[in-house]
Amino acid sequence: MSERPLYLDHNATTPLLPAVLDAMLPWLREGFGNPSSDHVYGRRARDAVEDARARVAGLLGCAPAEVVFTSGGTESNNLAIRGTALARPERRGLVTSVVEHPATLRPVELLASRGWRVRWLPVDGAGQVAEGDLEAVPWMQVSLATVMLANNETGAVQPVAALARRARAHGALVHTDAAQAVGRIPVDVDALGVDLLTVAGHKLYAPKGVGALYVRTGSPLAPMLLGGGQERGVRPGTENVASIVGLGAACAIAATDLEAEGQRQRALRDILHARLAAAIPGLALNGPAEARLPNTLNLRFPGVNGRALLARASGLVASTGAACHAEGEQASAVIRAMGVPEAEALGSVRLSLGRGTREAQVTQAAEQLIASWTGLTAGK
Amino acid sequence: MSERPLYLDHNATTPLLPAVLDAMLPWLREGFGNPSSDHVYGRRARDAVEDARARVAGLLGCAPAEVVFTSGGTESNNLAIRGTALARPERRGLVTSVVEHPATLRPVELLASRGWRVRWLPVDGAGQVAEGDLEAVPWMQVSLATVMLANNETGAVQPVAALARRARAHGALVHTDAAQAVGRIPVDVDALGVDLLTVAGHKLYAPKGVGALYVRTGSPLAPMLLGGGQERGVRPGTENVASIVGLGAACAIAATDLEAEGQRQRALRDILHARLAAAIPGLALNGPAEARLPNTLNLRFPGVNGRALLARASGLVASTGAACHAEGEQASAVIRAMGVPEAEALGSVRLSLGRGTREAQVTQAAEQLIASWTGLTAGK
Repeated sequence: MSERPLYLDHNATTPLLPAVLDAMLPWLREGFGNPSSDHVYGRRARDAVEDARARVAGLLGCAPAEVVFTSGGTESNNLAIRGTALARPERRGLVTSVVEHPATLRPVELLASRGWRVRWLPVDGAGQVAEGDLEAVPWMQVSLATVMLANNETGAVQPVAALARRARAHGALVHTDAAQAVGRIPVDVDALGVDLLTVAGHKLYAPKGVGALYVRTGSPLAPMLLGGGQERGVRPGTENVASIVGLGAACAIAATDLEAEGQRQRALRDILHARLAAAIPGLALNGPAEARLPNTLNLRFPGVNGRALLARASGLVASTGAACHAEGEQASAVIRAMGVPEAEALGSVRLSLGRGTREAQVTQAAEQLIASWTGLTAGK
Repeated sequence: MSERPLYLDHNATTPLLPAVLDAMLPWLREGFGNPSSDHVYGRRARDAVEDARARVAGLLGCAPAEVVFTSGGTESNNLAIRGTALARPERRGLVTSVVEHPATLRPVELLASRGWRVRWLPVDGAGQVAEGDLEAVPWMQVSLATVMLANNETGAVQPVAALARRARAHGALVHTDAAQAVGRIPVDVDALGVDLLTVAGHKLYAPKGVGALYVRTGSPLAPMLLGGGQERGVRPGTENVASIVGLGAACAIAATDLEAEGQRQRALRDILHARLAAAIPGLALNGPAEARLPNTLNLRFPGVNGRALLARASGLVASTGAACHAEGEQASAVIRAMGVPEAEALGSVRLSLGRGTREAQVTQAAEQLIASWTGLTAGK
């Protein structure tokens, strides 16, 4: 692994923090017990899982008993949406937005194919759901509203608290996919007023293959997987102890420096944006100027293809959209939903910063992207 | 973690082999890319996942494209059983045994509650399904037969190949939960003739939170989780790269020394058994003498409670049944299904050896168990 281009794709996945790996290692070595075992190896593993649960709860502002560990964001979203639908089928109505992750869209579409009515909330030119559109929702028919807290492509923060106020006033439950938000902006389940919230480990410097679902006490939820009694039956299967410990450690770290690290990344991101804007006439921001994840900069470069732009800027890596559908050559559905014409949308590049990003790197990245754009538009 | 009693509970979970952890570490450090990302970090991670897939396939004797990575044995069993039922609902019949793991029993019971007819195969006094009982099954009405390859409590190896011959002759599909078998005895999907086979990482010295499902080419299977296109849509969610690499490494190691290590553990196990039998009149084996996992020794100690016996033998840890329901004070349902009376069944202890077990340890374990039994029966 000699070649190490600058990594500006933290919304696709983040590296483990060294402290997270350090926290995990004892549980990948001598602490290998099965948390369900009734002996000292089991008890130690069980205690480690419960410590981690308390740490995740601490970051989200909930009770430890409200945290269910899963295999990641996709499973958490599936469990939240389909588990609620199974447990609460009386109102066969759902509310969601047009810019959700496939792990939300596909379960919603499955329920739609089974006769559930779905209200799709549009987004404005900045990629945000408009609070005004929430008023027209027939809330009394809604079982669950699921709207992401922050968009993976644009970083747009959605008005989840406003959504939750309206939804819950009429007895609807609220889920938010906070995979991109947790660890980047303050996320408090009571301030948001949500009943269910998805956490994905690998988006906040914890491992891949682990996540969590916040489930408010009393919220009806049927399990997706069936088996042993782990996670109080809501999510059976031998606990992924080391990765759960890693998720707990990552949450504990985020809790200590969320504001400061957010400020730092926002400042670097805005330097990057300013440098690019100064050199590239017609550069446009995909997403809201303010209500946006501090690490995310999604830009439309005029007159070029985003993929070609990145291919030529070989000292850095970033993406043209979500990693989950990187193969496609189509424009991002999220950017298109914001009303951007196809041809323009294809010029989009998502630059997502992280804890390891430094100012000198941002300066270099700007130079490379400017040179790439200049070369492409000059036809060189 | 100072206190280190001898671990004889490898059927509950195994430690990572140091070589497995070594294989994982680069993917927990610099190799953190998202396999779906269209850049060098992504490609490296993708290649690592595909290398691991080939290694798992190598151990099972299948094509790499027939291996689907999951979060573990519970998910693999759920996906196999419910995914087949969803994809192939024409014949609403299932065949299973009375000694399956809860991750098989619960999905089967769910389908039964939805009107599926279930044929429950009994077991004999050694815990094995009798081949004669396979003849009476109305195979033409069966969509899927799911019988474990080796039992987690007794180590009894089931006649899966015979089951598969009959089932497939009548167009039924066959799944086997091989969580306890893979890495302990030779497992070849073609020799078995199965369509689906469950692998659980943490039972073969790979991490918790990762597993695989073998899916024979052409076998109809609907996904359980919905989301991005990972694992060709059968199992979406960002791949758990490091743990998948660990599973591949563990399979590669098992492939090199399966026979020799099995012989070694069988010999140690039989020494342990012989020592105990020589000192404890009336000691009985739960499970078949021959057709049994080489590491597993499940014994009924006369006149004592298994839990009390283990509590007094403080230099070793083992279990009285499956870890997944260690909390209960009831006798094991598996042992009861073999026709053992409740009072006798409560005297059962499962001793499961592993790659780290040495002869001196086995000798010490025998001494401790004999002393514990002697003390308990003498009322001391």
